[in-house]
Amino acid sequence: MRFISFEHGSTHHIGAVLGDQVIDLNASNPKLPIGLGQYLRGGGTLQDLEVLASASKAQHARPMNGIVHGLPIADPGKIFCLGLNYLEHVKEGGNKVVDYPTIFMRGASSLTAHNKPIMRPTISEKLDFEAELVLVIGQKMRHATKHTALEAVAGYSCFNDGTLRDYQKRTTQWTIGKNFDQTGGFGPCLVTPDELPSGASGLKIESRLNGKVMQFDNTSNMMFPVIETIVTITQAITLEPGDMIVMGTPSGVGYARTPPVFMKAGDTCDIEIEGIGTLSNPIQDEIATE
Amino acid sequence: MRFISFEHGSTHHIGAVLGDQVIDLNASNPKLPIGLGQYLRGGGTLQDLEVLASASKAQHARPMNGIVHGLPIADPGKIFCLGLNYLEHVKEGGNKVVDYPTIFMRGASSLTAHNKPIMRPTISEKLDFEAELVLVIGQKMRHATKHTALEAVAGYSCFNDGTLRDYQKRTTQWTIGKNFDQTGGFGPCLVTPDELPSGASGLKIESRLNGKVMQFDNTSNMMFPVIETIVTITQAITLEPGDMIVMGTPSGVGYARTPPVFMKAGDTCDIEIEGIGTLSNPIQDEIATE
Repeated sequence: MRFISFEHGSTHHIGAVLGDQVIDLNASNPKLPIGLGQYLRGGGTLQDLEVLASASKAQHARPMNGIVHGLPIADPGKIFCLGLNYLEHVKEGGNKVVDYPTIFMRGASSLTAHNKPIMRPTISEKLDFEAELVLVIGQKMRHATKHTALEAVAGYSCFNDGTLRDYQKRTTQWTIGKNFDQTGGFGPCLVTPDELPSGASGLKIESRLNGKVMQFDNTSNMMFPVIETIVTITQAITLEPGDMIVMGTPSGVGYARTPPVFMKAGDTCDIEIEGIGTLSNPIQDEIATE
Repeated sequence: MRFISFEHGSTHHIGAVLGDQVIDLNASNPKLPIGLGQYLRGGGTLQDLEVLASASKAQHARPMNGIVHGLPIADPGKIFCLGLNYLEHVKEGGNKVVDYPTIFMRGASSLTAHNKPIMRPTISEKLDFEAELVLVIGQKMRHATKHTALEAVAGYSCFNDGTLRDYQKRTTQWTIGKNFDQTGGFGPCLVTPDELPSGASGLKIESRLNGKVMQFDNTSNMMFPVIETIVTITQAITLEPGDMIVMGTPSGVGYARTPPVFMKAGDTCDIEIEGIGTLSNPIQDEIATE
């Protein structure tokens, strides 16, 4: 099943997508937390939400058309991101193939929802796109094995790991360039694992800038697939419900092109992953405050 | 004033320290959120908690002796950490002096409270200590200036940026080595800025391993002081209440010694900062689960 967050008055409700309809799950069950992050952290499962959606669809359905999306998880925990996970992207950046995933973190203030703007800041024009698969953790996990790793995954979505390339490379650590406000597109929906191949492998993934395909690859080409990544991270760290892992990007990013291509106000960037959907974000300039 | 979090049955309460007494602020005002992070995010200020503490001290005081500390902020937002912020530490690691702060992030699952163990994991013995000043954000801030930056700071505390050196250097990004479960000591208390020099500058800072001084420096030697760091980060990122900035460590860390010194089970590591207090953590081995 597919779950979304959508605007409802001054707050957001959790929705279950059924065809061209959305079931308002907070209307179905007023005791449900506002937000999937809080729901998952409280021990809830998406399986239980599927049951709720089936039981209540007649009363609380509304047309998908006209829905304003929020972040699938508005209040995430830790957000781990992989760099250098597709071979051709490693090569285009002149980087070396590594035997351990290259991991950095993003904070929640860097995220932006489906159809909401990705912001180009006043201090840099080097705003680049990165199409990525993202997974959301639904179950606490430490020392996962290849047999247990996928039990931790609540669902998958699309991510645009928007990056200010000059700030990414100001020092050895990429954190600032990866954390500008509202640069990381996330959505449109959270898709449960039963709708996808195991580990979300074998899915076509692409980015389009103003309709033109910029990156095109397949998630089966990730050098550190989902299972291996969860095993590796949980050797060190407890993954908790509401945590996210952003799985790295294929080749074709803007800075490695000749001439380089960066996103600017008025552009639209789409990230499409087979079986999940399309995340679309217009690009907007930050309004200078001084 | 100094604020702590302390165990109260199966939860934690916010305490205000008055001499050798602690005022239980959640008992004083049952509507107060459980946890300073949630309180600050809800728009609360430590000034208001000082008023509450003064008004209620007779009824809800208990002896400091016997208190079991929790994390000053148990539910932090973004945790930014500076590397390479003291010149002598840059030199001992063979690193270059940079003109922009080197920043990585930690997640909440990597933190551990005053007197609670720092965990040495099963997969690495290279557990190193790093004495650091940490500040907690109390007010939302973007595009801070040198005149407004300090308005964002709710308080200061001590931090032990416990690091698995081999995992820090497995790839170019330090994230995994800085995020092992329960490796980052944080506490014992949150000290409001009015009790300290501006920007917490000019404070002696040291680490002691089993009582022996390992690092000794002064916060006035930070190459990126508090004001400049807040200005720089907020050029890119909105700092929000409950966020933290960990300000980097002086020279004397274990891996740069001859021979190297790492922390092991049975050790105790203390981080003391003048005017703030002493954070103490015993070292304990993770129990293998397989």
